[in-house]
Amino acid sequence: MTVCIIGASMTDFGQRDAWIRELLAEAGSECLDRSGVAPEAVEHLLVSNMASGEFEGQTGIMNALAHDLGLLPAYAERVDQTSASGGAGIYSAWQSIASGASEMTLLVGGERMTHRSTAEATDVIASITHPVEYKHGLTLPSFAGLTARRYLHRYDAPRESLARVAVKNHANGIDNPHAQFRKEITVEEAMESPIVADPLRLYDFCPITDGSAALLFCPEEVAKEYAEEYVRVAGVGGATDTHVVHERGDPTTMGGVRESSQQAYEQGGYGPEDVDVAELHDMFTILEFLQLEDLGFVEKGRAWKATEEGRTERDGDLPINTSGGLKSKGHPLGASGVAQVYELVGQLLGTAGPRGVDAEVGLACNVGGFGNCVTTTIVEGT
Amino acid sequence: MTVCIIGASMTDFGQRDAWIRELLAEAGSECLDRSGVAPEAVEHLLVSNMASGEFEGQTGIMNALAHDLGLLPAYAERVDQTSASGGAGIYSAWQSIASGASEMTLLVGGERMTHRSTAEATDVIASITHPVEYKHGLTLPSFAGLTARRYLHRYDAPRESLARVAVKNHANGIDNPHAQFRKEITVEEAMESPIVADPLRLYDFCPITDGSAALLFCPEEVAKEYAEEYVRVAGVGGATDTHVVHERGDPTTMGGVRESSQQAYEQGGYGPEDVDVAELHDMFTILEFLQLEDLGFVEKGRAWKATEEGRTERDGDLPINTSGGLKSKGHPLGASGVAQVYELVGQLLGTAGPRGVDAEVGLACNVGGFGNCVTTTIVEGT
Repeated sequence: MTVCIIGASMTDFGQRDAWIRELLAEAGSECLDRSGVAPEAVEHLLVSNMASGEFEGQTGIMNALAHDLGLLPAYAERVDQTSASGGAGIYSAWQSIASGASEMTLLVGGERMTHRSTAEATDVIASITHPVEYKHGLTLPSFAGLTARRYLHRYDAPRESLARVAVKNHANGIDNPHAQFRKEITVEEAMESPIVADPLRLYDFCPITDGSAALLFCPEEVAKEYAEEYVRVAGVGGATDTHVVHERGDPTTMGGVRESSQQAYEQGGYGPEDVDVAELHDMFTILEFLQLEDLGFVEKGRAWKATEEGRTERDGDLPINTSGGLKSKGHPLGASGVAQVYELVGQLLGTAGPRGVDAEVGLACNVGGFGNCVTTTIVEGT
Repeated sequence: MTVCIIGASMTDFGQRDAWIRELLAEAGSECLDRSGVAPEAVEHLLVSNMASGEFEGQTGIMNALAHDLGLLPAYAERVDQTSASGGAGIYSAWQSIASGASEMTLLVGGERMTHRSTAEATDVIASITHPVEYKHGLTLPSFAGLTARRYLHRYDAPRESLARVAVKNHANGIDNPHAQFRKEITVEEAMESPIVADPLRLYDFCPITDGSAALLFCPEEVAKEYAEEYVRVAGVGGATDTHVVHERGDPTTMGGVRESSQQAYEQGGYGPEDVDVAELHDMFTILEFLQLEDLGFVEKGRAWKATEEGRTERDGDLPINTSGGLKSKGHPLGASGVAQVYELVGQLLGTAGPRGVDAEVGLACNVGGFGNCVTTTIVEGT
C-alpha cells in the first residue's frame, strides 16, 4: 500500500489572536478546501498537540475539531510526542491508511503558546525531560549550550558557524509568507545577541509561537481520484533515545535521528545521497549540525564546514530548511513536524514560490525533547 | 493480517502511593514478564494517558517509559482520547501491527489522579467538553443526571433500576483483586446515598482512581511463537458525536457507541447476539443502560428491564462488567479502556478466577467525554 498526501496547508505562524481550536480549524479547513475533499469523506482525524491542557486549560480538542470541521462521525485522536508530535502524527496517519483502518486521514498539528509567559511555557517544555535533570536547571536550552560547547571544541569549529545556521534560515524565512520572523539577520548580529546558554545566544534559539498546519493522507488509488499531482510517503520511522540525556554515550550524536532515518531510508529504498531538500528540527542552531551528520548528509564533525561553505543554502547542493526552519518560521510544538512536510510538499510540487528548489525527494526530521524520540519522514514526487 | 494479544496486566486500582511513571512501569513490566517477550523485541510503545501534564506537571511520559522498561530504541507515542484514551490506544496498536509498522507493540494505559483534590480533577475532566456548556456548570455528571432523568421518564423505568447497575458491578468487583472498591452494596444504600446530580446519587458514579494496565499486540504468526493461548482482535472501531452535547438529536442515544460498534461488528463478522461477555463504560450507571441499547444487546428502552431481570449479572445470559466495571474497579482515565480488554482476555483464556464466565467472544466499549468519541473492540478466543 502506498500512502499519499493530497492536501497541505499551514496558518500564519507567530503571535496569533486565536485560541487553539481556531488555529486547528483554520489549517484543517484550508487543507480540505485546497484538496477538494468533502468533510464527510474524512474517516480519521489526528491532532498533533503536546499541551493544550497545560497551555490553555482545554482538553478534548480532537473531538472539538471533528465537530468544527463537520467530520462527524469520523474517529478522532490526539497524538503527543512532545516537540515531535507532528512527526508522530505523520507516522500515525501513515499507519491508519496502510492498515486499511481509514481511506482518508486528516492530520492537523497545532499549538498556542504566546499567551503564556516565557517562564510558564518553558516550565511545561522542561517537563518533557527527566526531573533528575530539569529540576537542577538542565532544561532543553542548557543541553543545547553544553552540546554546542562540546561540538565546537571536539571538531575545532568556529562559533560563527552556528550563527550561519541562523542567518541562512532567516534568509529563507523572508520568502515564507507564513513565517514568524521575515527579517534578515547578519552573523555579527547573531554573535552579539544576548547569551542564553553559553556559548549559545538569543539568535541560536527558535521563538515561542502559535500556529497550525495540516496534511491529508489517503491510498494512492484514492489520491488519483482527487488530484493530478500529489506526493508519496516513501518512508517513515520513529525511535527513542535515553530519557536521561546525560546517560548517552556521545553528546554530539542523536541516536534517535540515526535510528529513525535508517528505518525511513530502508522503507523508501533511499539513502542520504538521494535527498534533494530537507527540513530539520533547528530548535537550536546546534541541532541542525547534529542532524546533518546523524542523517548521513555529511561526515561526522563536518556539518559546520558544509554550512560555512554554503552547501545548505537554497542554491547549495543540500538545501536545508528552505521554509526558514523553526528558527525563523517559528515552533508551535504540535504543528512543527506537520509544517516541515507542508514545506516539502510545496518543494516537490513546485509551489514553493521564490524559495523553491529543484527536488524529487524530500526528508523531514522532527525531534522530541532533546532527541528523546525522533521521527523521520521521506516524501517523493510522482 | 490478524492482530493478536499475547500479554495483559493491570496494577491495583485505587489510591496509590506512586507517580505516573511508576504506575506505567509496573503494568508494562508485568505484561512483558508474563508474555515472555524480551524488552528488545518491542518495536512500538503506546501510552494511553489523558493528562499527566495537568495532573502531575510531567510530560514526555512515553519516552520515560520506553527508557524505564529498557525498550530503546522502540518508537514511543502518547495517545489521548480523554476517558477513551485506552480504547484509542487499542485502535492505534491494532493499526501499528496491521500496517506492518511494528511486529510487537506494547500498549500501557495509566493515570494518576487521587493526589489532586476532587475539584481539581473534575476541573481537568470538565474541560473535555465545550466551554459553552461546562462554563455554565454542565459538566459530565450534570449531563449524566439530565440523561438519567430523561431516560427514566421516557421509558417509565424505576429509579431503582439504576441502583441495580451499581449493586451488580460492586458484587463483581468483590472478586477482582485489583478493584478499588471490593465491597458489597445494596439497592437501599445506593438509593440513600447523597444526591450528586439529581436523580443520580453518589453510588451512581465511578470514583477517582490511580492505576495502569497493559496489553501486548503482535501478528498471529508471531503470537504462535510466544504463546499457546492468546486472543485475537476481531474488530475495532472508533467514532465521534457532537462536541456540544445539547446539539444531539436524542439525549438517550449515543451515536458514537452505535457507529463504532457497527464498524467493529462488521470487521469481525459478528453481531451483538454473538457477544458472550462485555465491559461497558459505566462511569455513570445510566451509561451502562445507553450502551446496552446502542450496542444492540437489548431493544431501545429495555436495558433497565434486562438489568432488573438479572440478565446482565454474572450468571445471566449477558454478563456485563464482570471486572466490577469503572464503578467498582475504578476509573484511572487512560487505563480504563486497556483494563476493559485485560478483563476480556482473562474471560476468554479462562483465567478470570471466581468471576469467570463461559465466553468465546468479548466486547469492550470505551466512552470519551460524554460520548464525544467512542471506541469499541471485539476480541475472540482461538
